Amino acid sequence: VGMVIVLIRTQVRVDADRAAYDALGERMDALVRTIPGFVSATGYTGEAGDEISLVRFASTEALRAWRDHPEHVVAQARGRAEFYAAYEIEVCEVTRAYHFP
Amino acid sequence: VGMVIVLIRTQVRVDADRAAYDALGERMDALVRTIPGFVSATGYTGEAGDEISLVRFASTEALRAWRDHPEHVVAQARGRAEFYAAYEIEVCEVTRAYHFP
Repeated sequence: VGMVIVLIRTQVRVDADRAAYDALGERMDALVRTIPGFVSATGYTGEAGDEISLVRFASTEALRAWRDHPEHVVAQARGRAEFYAAYEIEVCEVTRAYHFP
Repeated sequence: VGMVIVLIRTQVRVDADRAAYDALGERMDALVRTIPGFVSATGYTGEAGDEISLVRFASTEALRAWRDHPEHVVAQARGRAEFYAAYEIEVCEVTRAYHFP
């Protein structure tokens, strides 16, 4: 199918600068949408109140372009240094898709 | 990594028998947990109020066992005949995983 889905769970530090974190998040959200092959980015809330993000790209090349975007690389480092207590990222390839009808 | 994630979006018919649908869903939820290699099944609500389910299996073999389980096969047919206006299912293989710290 070619589609790649990145599943992201993050846990923000209790002492993080929330305004700075939100501003960086908004900037990254705007930036990822400019990557050729970007498909969608959506946040979801789980049954237990946990939050996940699903970010879709049309190809692994598009994901790589996003991963290696210079401004995003700086943001990733800031995330680890300033904002995240923990995160888990899973890169998934869509191998089959079914629909009804 | 071996992990398989099935991403499911469903749209239930407005005229569906909600009690029958919920009963079947509960039964399937109990049944999938008995499949060797089942990892987790969680529902999420999106920003727009849309709902998705993520079902995890340790391998494609485990997913295949679930897909082909006789009681599940009957339930799938009932879903199309009685309950679903539409659904989309994406089978995803986790190709890489990162975590911090």
